[in-house]
Amino acid sequence: MLQIQSTLTDNGQVTLALAEVPQPAPKPHEVLIRVDAAPINPSDLGVMLAGADLGTLAATTVEGRPAVTATVPAAALAGLAGRFGRPQPCGNEGAGEVVAAGDHPEAQALIGRTVAAIGGAMYAGYRAMPAAQCLVLNEGTTAEAGASCFVNPLTALAMVDTMRAEGHPALVHTAAASNLGQMLVKICQADSVELVNIVRRPEQAELLRSLGAGHVCDSSQPSFRADLVDALAATGATVAFDATGGGRLASQILDAMEASAQRTATGGYNRYGSTVHKQVYIYGGLERGVTELTRTYGMAWGVGGFLLTNFLTKAGPERAAQLRQRVADEIHTTFASRYTKRIGLAGMLDVAELAAYGRMATGEKYLVLPQS
Amino acid sequence: MLQIQSTLTDNGQVTLALAEVPQPAPKPHEVLIRVDAAPINPSDLGVMLAGADLGTLAATTVEGRPAVTATVPAAALAGLAGRFGRPQPCGNEGAGEVVAAGDHPEAQALIGRTVAAIGGAMYAGYRAMPAAQCLVLNEGTTAEAGASCFVNPLTALAMVDTMRAEGHPALVHTAAASNLGQMLVKICQADSVELVNIVRRPEQAELLRSLGAGHVCDSSQPSFRADLVDALAATGATVAFDATGGGRLASQILDAMEASAQRTATGGYNRYGSTVHKQVYIYGGLERGVTELTRTYGMAWGVGGFLLTNFLTKAGPERAAQLRQRVADEIHTTFASRYTKRIGLAGMLDVAELAAYGRMATGEKYLVLPQS
Repeated sequence: MLQIQSTLTDNGQVTLALAEVPQPAPKPHEVLIRVDAAPINPSDLGVMLAGADLGTLAATTVEGRPAVTATVPAAALAGLAGRFGRPQPCGNEGAGEVVAAGDHPEAQALIGRTVAAIGGAMYAGYRAMPAAQCLVLNEGTTAEAGASCFVNPLTALAMVDTMRAEGHPALVHTAAASNLGQMLVKICQADSVELVNIVRRPEQAELLRSLGAGHVCDSSQPSFRADLVDALAATGATVAFDATGGGRLASQILDAMEASAQRTATGGYNRYGSTVHKQVYIYGGLERGVTELTRTYGMAWGVGGFLLTNFLTKAGPERAAQLRQRVADEIHTTFASRYTKRIGLAGMLDVAELAAYGRMATGEKYLVLPQS
Repeated sequence: MLQIQSTLTDNGQVTLALAEVPQPAPKPHEVLIRVDAAPINPSDLGVMLAGADLGTLAATTVEGRPAVTATVPAAALAGLAGRFGRPQPCGNEGAGEVVAAGDHPEAQALIGRTVAAIGGAMYAGYRAMPAAQCLVLNEGTTAEAGASCFVNPLTALAMVDTMRAEGHPALVHTAAASNLGQMLVKICQADSVELVNIVRRPEQAELLRSLGAGHVCDSSQPSFRADLVDALAATGATVAFDATGGGRLASQILDAMEASAQRTATGGYNRYGSTVHKQVYIYGGLERGVTELTRTYGMAWGVGGFLLTNFLTKAGPERAAQLRQRVADEIHTTFASRYTKRIGLAGMLDVAELAAYGRMATGEKYLVLPQS
């Protein structure tokens, strides 16, 4: 079978190629999924391109099959030594029909069912997965509809769970017009959670307002900081989930949270700032540069990484199962994904296509159909 | 009585002056402390100078008494609007004799005792404090010996408590040759806790080694990163307390923690990094610039502010009392402070003295004797 692989050399050349690999044989408790649909998420691009400069994309061939190469800036190579020379399969999540299974009854029971899974190596004809890790889609749900069950839906649900677990009264989300952001708007409406949406363009603000979002702050507007402080004061949000990562947005959010806290502070000026903890979790890296923190928001603040798998480990299997079931039940409503283009595995290696989906533009999303 | 006050105007002029204020009258549960000794800590300088450029110090007079002015860079004014035009008393901590008390028996019982206290406004002839908040020094402990009971000793103890509470096996400390750093070395020796000390100069490394510190990494050496990764691998430290704040040191520590984790990782390359949580707490701002995070250490990381009072609130009154008693009992050993110069309240406003103590140089520490 064919599988997309990304190989990075220690001199910063990354090659994306279609490799011929043996079809996996399911172990007793595993099922073999014929991957029918798999989305391209920003986190997939991180593995595929390793931070390469899109301007350096060039077509090539590997073992007679089409491939693409690109150059990774030296600065982006830090921390990637572990993958030098080791082909990385790509594609975090996807869905398809179970076409074979191991002997275990739990695995056998899934034959013929359409399931969604996360675990990497989904840009391939087939993928073996433990039956217990599959999300069995409800009858009638297609692989296309269920292809994006994990990364966006569960991350959005994890944000709300994290907000509650840490005692924050409301939350902030950046790059809020994304697929994930739109899901979060719907979750918060259904669960009566106050959400402050930060977007970067007026048309994104309009899109979110058309979904019924109450608080939308557009960072391209001169009134952005004042708008943000107003929204934070209205909602009391003290936790934010940031997809941009680099630059000063995380710091600006903390600064605005502190300004909001000062508005309602009693007892006069406190040089160590408000005592309520203000937190920004960075879950993406749309901006690749360094994160700059101005530390102008007292001492009760934190910034940290946020990763779905780490959240699920902490939440425990019971809560994870509840969240997965909610995704399955609401896959056509809350968690419906929209795709702007469908391509096959070979299409992923077309330089023009790669340049388009590699931009990670909000509102543009590709679906890979490995069987096409 | 006289009291040091710092006043900042909205155009960035800060004035440090000796103000005549009424001597406070203790409420029923309060005692009146004659402040005999109070240290100048970096956190005091933050209030006194508001981030002013030391090159702009100039002598002046306010109401006929000597004063000093300086100019605060526009960038440093962010977040300080709350104190514009409001004189701020200075001096976080100090010690002295209780010379009067309110009617409450708990307050009356302290008359004649030498106590230490934290709460601001200690650069003054007298300070009223709730009796319950005073740390009663053991018989024979002088005010000079007990002047620095809180900021450094309790912060050092709070670091070890925080390390334990969060499940880290060892800890890292920066600016480790400071008074606080030397206390931390002794605490960790007594408590069998592994400590990685980061210093900025060879003579600081020697000083710490002379105290018996096992892991000392000098950031001025070309081998710094390799030394740090080795020390982290040897100790397993996954939490750091950083006094510098600005620049890339916090990020370098996280990066080295990740490199250390990768050394022992099993199961091959994980593009989201190690799953063990790596944390840096920033408790000071010796470097005033922005904190730069390169995010080259996976997703299981955090950076945040660390403040003693917030720690004590979380730890609860019982634990706080235990820690205070340990400080009182070990004030001549573990928590002994060394001062390089003693000055009076008026001496604090001498431009040459202010320029000297305002540098916050490691190893230099002033003690204020308000009665001299």
